[in-house]
Amino acid sequence: MKKIFVILSSMLILAGSAMAQEWANFSRGGDAVVSPELSETSVTFRLSADYATVVKVQPSWLDEPVAMTKGEKGVWSATIDLPYPEIHTYHFLVDGVKVNDPLNDFIQRDGTSYLNMICVPGERSENYMEASKRGTVSYKWYDSKILGINRRVTVYTPYGYDENPKKKYPVLYLLHGAGGDEEAWSSMGRAAQILDNLIEKGLAEPMIVVMPNGNPTQQAAGYMKIPQARPQGTTQAAPQGARGQGGRNNNYVQSLCEEIVPFIESHYRVIAKPEKRAIAGLSMGGGHTLTAVSNYPSLFDYICAMSPAGTITAEGAAALKKDGYKYFLLACGTSDFIFERTVNNEKTLTEQGLEHEYFLSDGGHVWANWRMYLNRLAPKLFK
Amino acid sequence: MKKIFVILSSMLILAGSAMAQEWANFSRGGDAVVSPELSETSVTFRLSADYATVVKVQPSWLDEPVAMTKGEKGVWSATIDLPYPEIHTYHFLVDGVKVNDPLNDFIQRDGTSYLNMICVPGERSENYMEASKRGTVSYKWYDSKILGINRRVTVYTPYGYDENPKKKYPVLYLLHGAGGDEEAWSSMGRAAQILDNLIEKGLAEPMIVVMPNGNPTQQAAGYMKIPQARPQGTTQAAPQGARGQGGRNNNYVQSLCEEIVPFIESHYRVIAKPEKRAIAGLSMGGGHTLTAVSNYPSLFDYICAMSPAGTITAEGAAALKKDGYKYFLLACGTSDFIFERTVNNEKTLTEQGLEHEYFLSDGGHVWANWRMYLNRLAPKLFK
Repeated sequence: MKKIFVILSSMLILAGSAMAQEWANFSRGGDAVVSPELSETSVTFRLSADYATVVKVQPSWLDEPVAMTKGEKGVWSATIDLPYPEIHTYHFLVDGVKVNDPLNDFIQRDGTSYLNMICVPGERSENYMEASKRGTVSYKWYDSKILGINRRVTVYTPYGYDENPKKKYPVLYLLHGAGGDEEAWSSMGRAAQILDNLIEKGLAEPMIVVMPNGNPTQQAAGYMKIPQARPQGTTQAAPQGARGQGGRNNNYVQSLCEEIVPFIESHYRVIAKPEKRAIAGLSMGGGHTLTAVSNYPSLFDYICAMSPAGTITAEGAAALKKDGYKYFLLACGTSDFIFERTVNNEKTLTEQGLEHEYFLSDGGHVWANWRMYLNRLAPKLFK
Repeated sequence: MKKIFVILSSMLILAGSAMAQEWANFSRGGDAVVSPELSETSVTFRLSADYATVVKVQPSWLDEPVAMTKGEKGVWSATIDLPYPEIHTYHFLVDGVKVNDPLNDFIQRDGTSYLNMICVPGERSENYMEASKRGTVSYKWYDSKILGINRRVTVYTPYGYDENPKKKYPVLYLLHGAGGDEEAWSSMGRAAQILDNLIEKGLAEPMIVVMPNGNPTQQAAGYMKIPQARPQGTTQAAPQGARGQGGRNNNYVQSLCEEIVPFIESHYRVIAKPEKRAIAGLSMGGGHTLTAVSNYPSLFDYICAMSPAGTITAEGAAALKKDGYKYFLLACGTSDFIFERTVNNEKTLTEQGLEHEYFLSDGGHVWANWRMYLNRLAPKLFK
């Protein structure tokens, strides 16, 4: 049995370009230009751009781009002071056009943008890079009858989950903000790295972390190019739900509590009790969190609202107090545009007599804060 | 219990930039510029670059970049004929600097490069986009004693795996080429989409697909920035192993057959029999495949070498024939720089009397071929 087939289509022209792709980073290995280059006190960015007129670099920690200087072989460079320990992003501006650093593949995806990262080492950022014992990150699909679509959810199971087939785990439901998707917390939020490190250090309980997609009309992250489905079986305006401004009729929150939680509890080895369920979210996801604990007050005993773009009503707070909970963290940056709203939420919690931790950092509506809040929250959970 | 904390660090400056990140693709929603724009016969690329002097677009299917024309509001554009149905890539050249399309988040990662994609619809590419029933893609970690490091492997489990807890599945081990990593087949190869579509259409058996990292000194994809570990407990020069040129002492192939296969068979519900194990690989991974079936002839009954950067020796072929197998596919493009080597491999198979299918397409050393080969291979497996 020997068959020979020949497919006829004009693909010859592809050979050159794709061969180059396949062998790309071997040739790059011989490239003398390095970017970014971190020292104890500074970072140097470099870009080969022999024919460009004006080249700048825009670091996320500076308001204005920094002019780069053209050196030998058309390589532009700029050296600036190292910012404080955190993950920061940057991009180049080549004759006014935003350009990523081709020499830096340490990249996060923010919705439709891909951003080059640097991680400045320090106590604050020590849990943001890979631990030595790592959990599993999975992308699963579930059917939402409430939203009328099949949807993608990111699930982190801790190191040892497979090796301990009889052990059951607590679950943290971790919600993203507007513009994000089911990969926001694992990409920008470094959730897997933060949990891996805290668990490895014995500072956090081994837990499952569930990161759903908070945009009710979206099946999955937009880059997957799944044609957007119109939600069926719901009369609610999806964009309103998508913003999740704490409205009691938010159908994503309903799906989270009535579909995602049961899906996780039927597909993973979890301890299906309120004291082993936590919910946390940032911005829009903070609004979703406040709505969830108001509408389903007996579901979660651990609660964290980060820079919440939502409001907890007196009724919601009263309902939560009546059912009880173990821990409530409200966190925000003092220069966050949501700070004033957070002050009002804190006022409601106090007036309704809900014990809570009120954590204020400086800084604004930024991942640098949300990573820090998760790093602070995880050790408090399920203890 | 009400605590107040204030963290002191200068983060105020971050507010602006990161707020912009968080809300980025809402503002982008109002942007009138569209790129890429596909019609029945052409594709139009557009880029806003008011201060650029020369802007071009380089499609992967053309040897030379195409000049773009500056129009209103500094938007450059070029319209070119649509290539044949496949996934193609492109980038812009702004005053000589490679730039991705900021309006196209349909991106694949090739080692250290991120490449914008377009998928031209057609019979050939119909299995490359999302199916309606999708499997789970997981990133797992396993310890390799042979390579002395903890390593990451991508595992695809088919739709229904969780819902059929008593069902056991066959496994395809799918190997990448030089410059790739454990995400190459899921990103550039569209392996999950191809399997989802073939399984949904009833053309392929539901199967688990295991996509390891074929670079022996590498723990995981480079973008994760795990400090490269020196392999312990091995005297073999890792780079030699990394190229996997079919050498019998390739320690990655040893790890694949003696560690990864047992790891998968102890962590998933698999049918642990040769007739339910398949191995396939492209380029360097094709070499790994030929080495694996030569050194472990009784392990896999389904074999596919795609543009193999490796050689099957007469001894290896004889060993395989002695142990027996069910299906052997040797595939290559006639303009592939590995075609001559493939002709020699085919000669060895024929001389040694190994039944095989010899599949020649035109085209070179390109993913367009390897996707097509996987799409052709999967329906032949485990039947």
